[in-house]
Amino acid sequence: MENYKIPKKSVERLSIYKRILKGIMDAGFTTVSSRELAERAGLNSAQVRKDLVYFGQFGTPGMGYHVSILHRTITKIMGLHKKIPVALIGVGNLGQALLSYQGFKERGFIIESIFDNDREKVGKIKNGLKIMDERNISIEIKKKNIRVGIITIPSSAAQSAANKLIKGGIKGILNFAPIELKVPSRTTVVNVALCEKLEMLSYYLSKRKLL
Amino acid sequence: MENYKIPKKSVERLSIYKRILKGIMDAGFTTVSSRELAERAGLNSAQVRKDLVYFGQFGTPGMGYHVSILHRTITKIMGLHKKIPVALIGVGNLGQALLSYQGFKERGFIIESIFDNDREKVGKIKNGLKIMDERNISIEIKKKNIRVGIITIPSSAAQSAANKLIKGGIKGILNFAPIELKVPSRTTVVNVALCEKLEMLSYYLSKRKLL
Repeated sequence: MENYKIPKKSVERLSIYKRILKGIMDAGFTTVSSRELAERAGLNSAQVRKDLVYFGQFGTPGMGYHVSILHRTITKIMGLHKKIPVALIGVGNLGQALLSYQGFKERGFIIESIFDNDREKVGKIKNGLKIMDERNISIEIKKKNIRVGIITIPSSAAQSAANKLIKGGIKGILNFAPIELKVPSRTTVVNVALCEKLEMLSYYLSKRKLL
Repeated sequence: MENYKIPKKSVERLSIYKRILKGIMDAGFTTVSSRELAERAGLNSAQVRKDLVYFGQFGTPGMGYHVSILHRTITKIMGLHKKIPVALIGVGNLGQALLSYQGFKERGFIIESIFDNDREKVGKIKNGLKIMDERNISIEIKKKNIRVGIITIPSSAAQSAANKLIKGGIKGILNFAPIELKVPSRTTVVNVALCEKLEMLSYYLSKRKLL
């Protein structure tokens, strides 16, 4: 991801802007100022304007941004205007939570194939999908042309699952296992570090002597 | 969190260093170079040295860092040397996943009270804990002196739950609901943005025309 000039934090904020714009749009408003966007996002307005300029959006002075155009632009920039087929590796508690998570579907991420290495689970149906054997990841995702994989299995098994995804032609992995996956440079990994977020909270509280 | 001079990203990386140091320690090594730490973390060694200096750690030239001392220092800086009682709000799929997640317990985060607003769930036992009515959050966490809350309920109910946590004296919130919670400045919120991570992945793939 180091190849991209736009800061990672600006990219992360795009999601936030998109969510806020959706709310403003649903409430029937057509324009929004950078100040209002900033307030709702908990940022300062200079930051908002700077972020949006990266993506070619310039508000009209005194008028602000056109809500639906800005929303559509961000959606398109993020590739969220299409349906994206997704493979889920690991149908444990976390996997099942993601499987029934509406937020993914609403954004076009459709979990189409699910895998586990637990023989007790393989063959069972979850959310209308048959749990497949992890050994078949490569064949299956190649067949279905799946580009994105989500890994929710323990660290010890995560690298092996990632290898199978890569062999099957995966382009991006959302990784919940607390390890740094080794992948070729053409594969993008985004880590979701659950424990690290809690540790961060612990750090801030500890610093304020609140623990 | 703006009050702290240490960059948020450095704090996030502390968790990564800690995890890597634990692995090195378990493998029986006593020292580690910034270069090796960097390689394992997928960073450059200058970054590692810079991060650790913030926390008063200086490696010995040619010798590197003392693994167990550095591990202990980071653990202590992060407040992870104590047990931290935690309240979980929302015993849905995600809440249950977190409830049985070993990673939290290993780091001293002990979920002691669990809440839901679903009458069907209240009173039932999950992982040895009785699910309590969300209306009793404030009383319960005050009684148990719980400082950290985890919110896993939908956005529509998240602010109300946060208010109850704050009324009960909560110091920090780990928030999985995709909204910006409004909290007093003395309360620290760390957001875990599941959808935003997937959207970020979508952005990077889209930019490389892989979707």
